[in-house]
Amino acid sequence: MPELRKDPVIKRWVIIATERAKRPSDFGTAKTTEKKGGFCPFDYGNEHLTPPEVLAFRSPNSKPNEPGWWIRVVPNKFPALDPKIKLRRKGMGMYDVISGTGAHEIIIETPDHNLSMADMKRKQVQEIIWAYKDRYDVLSKRDGIRYVLIFKNYKREAGASLEHSHSQIIATPIVPKRVEEELEGAKEYYEYKERCVFCDIINQELSDGKRIVEENDSFLAIAPFAARFPFETWILPKEHKNNFVKISDNGVSQFAEVLSSVLKRLKKALNDPPFNYIIHSSPVNDRGKEFYHWHLELIPRLTKVAGFEWGSGFYINPTPPEDAAKFLREVEI
Amino acid sequence: MPELRKDPVIKRWVIIATERAKRPSDFGTAKTTEKKGGFCPFDYGNEHLTPPEVLAFRSPNSKPNEPGWWIRVVPNKFPALDPKIKLRRKGMGMYDVISGTGAHEIIIETPDHNLSMADMKRKQVQEIIWAYKDRYDVLSKRDGIRYVLIFKNYKREAGASLEHSHSQIIATPIVPKRVEEELEGAKEYYEYKERCVFCDIINQELSDGKRIVEENDSFLAIAPFAARFPFETWILPKEHKNNFVKISDNGVSQFAEVLSSVLKRLKKALNDPPFNYIIHSSPVNDRGKEFYHWHLELIPRLTKVAGFEWGSGFYINPTPPEDAAKFLREVEI
Repeated sequence: MPELRKDPVIKRWVIIATERAKRPSDFGTAKTTEKKGGFCPFDYGNEHLTPPEVLAFRSPNSKPNEPGWWIRVVPNKFPALDPKIKLRRKGMGMYDVISGTGAHEIIIETPDHNLSMADMKRKQVQEIIWAYKDRYDVLSKRDGIRYVLIFKNYKREAGASLEHSHSQIIATPIVPKRVEEELEGAKEYYEYKERCVFCDIINQELSDGKRIVEENDSFLAIAPFAARFPFETWILPKEHKNNFVKISDNGVSQFAEVLSSVLKRLKKALNDPPFNYIIHSSPVNDRGKEFYHWHLELIPRLTKVAGFEWGSGFYINPTPPEDAAKFLREVEI
Repeated sequence: MPELRKDPVIKRWVIIATERAKRPSDFGTAKTTEKKGGFCPFDYGNEHLTPPEVLAFRSPNSKPNEPGWWIRVVPNKFPALDPKIKLRRKGMGMYDVISGTGAHEIIIETPDHNLSMADMKRKQVQEIIWAYKDRYDVLSKRDGIRYVLIFKNYKREAGASLEHSHSQIIATPIVPKRVEEELEGAKEYYEYKERCVFCDIINQELSDGKRIVEENDSFLAIAPFAARFPFETWILPKEHKNNFVKISDNGVSQFAEVLSSVLKRLKKALNDPPFNYIIHSSPVNDRGKEFYHWHLELIPRLTKVAGFEWGSGFYINPTPPEDAAKFLREVEI
């Protein structure tokens, strides 16, 4: 059974996923993003090979767990956290452990095995965001859930184990450390200035202009001032909202527009790089209503970048964000 | 000129290294760990191609910046931080910036181009640690320096741009965020328990036994209880000391013994994996004397591991540390 363990020094929770336990021999050779012998569990006709769907957008005359869908959400077959596990907290000597309760779901973003998000029609990206919102809403209301994490790993180098376009949702009984840090920092700023730090960032970036990648009425995409990675990009809603689930109907369409353009720019500028994106939202209990501001952070995973950084929290970024933004802005899409 | 920029939300400092600025075309193709046409600036006879050495262990009849050395420390030719830059703090709108003052040096660990640290004699590893200590001592006494970071990136996948065995030292005008977090966590624990959290970890691990990888009189190597990565390994001095520079003469030799064995085990168990290690030490002003405890953290960089984790601070580790430790312990070296 998976469990959550807490680092006793810096209080980071880690999922130790025994269900997906790897032996040393599993490392170093795996290159399984390609469709093995033409087979993919996310393709039409293979619906019975995933756990039963928990949500699908499908044509009215189609049946659950059969073809006819354009978005399909299923529990992960090898979940990092599992709703069947009961919440239990215990000590192990000086250490703290929580049983691996929660949820781990896969959003299959298209039936088309070869279509990547950058090449999807805007309508399809919009549908993906609707699926995020629907599942966020359901999972965040479950007992014992404190955080819902929505993310996408694109390509093997960014941690994707299947190449068919998909995102993931993990619902956790704890608030991830990075989120706690953002909440704390944003709160401190709010107490000092009586303004949301993210709203201030948006205003400063709009007036500077140098780090803007893309913009529409409701969203702004920027290369952040203290970017850790080359071509790191954040997408922020211009209106102050602490939680992603509060996105409006029009917001979904506007968010899809900016996300889609950013992905097209990255694909063209950097030769379709691997990337990770994560939606940063407040915890489920509406903490941070005044001072937190949801947004998406995207990190392209470029060759030779990073190293000791991930272990020290100290980053060296060889590409000034102003240069990255200019380059992405000027790419023709 | 390089500069340090602070993230206004979570207060992470990032070096924006304009001197090593990369264009988009620099990414995705570079695979430069191999010796290009047989040429390497760290080999005997090429000493004039690096900046002049700041330290060398060499035979008495040899001359500086000529062959005859067995360890050589030189400033990085493309430094992330530079001692020639004057410390200057400024605001840019809402953002904070510090000029890129500091130091960035390379420890060339051997004249033998093809020798990796795992295969070195223990005496040579000892000499490397002596070089770390010597340079730590010099750099930490410079004006404006708040932290000295010693680390090693092994292989391209872990961020090394040259294959010739080397480590790096960066001296910074700020304390890295991860260090601040460890100091804070350790301080809180100390205030609650009146004991060092790392000393408690050592005692708990010695009595549990399950996560021990290697041990001698003065050092303990463990797979940490809440390991983020498969085969993550920490090496801790058994005696409480906040700062690496306080290591004793005998400590250097004992540390070399454990580090050397751990590297041999990893090499054999995981087919010579890429890795990063970082020495975690207190800041230079002796902060954390009672409650901080220096140690080394080693992260093997195994295929398909990681992804969204680095952006969220939330990790999924598919290999329980108990399994990793058992496997490493049982490898014959």
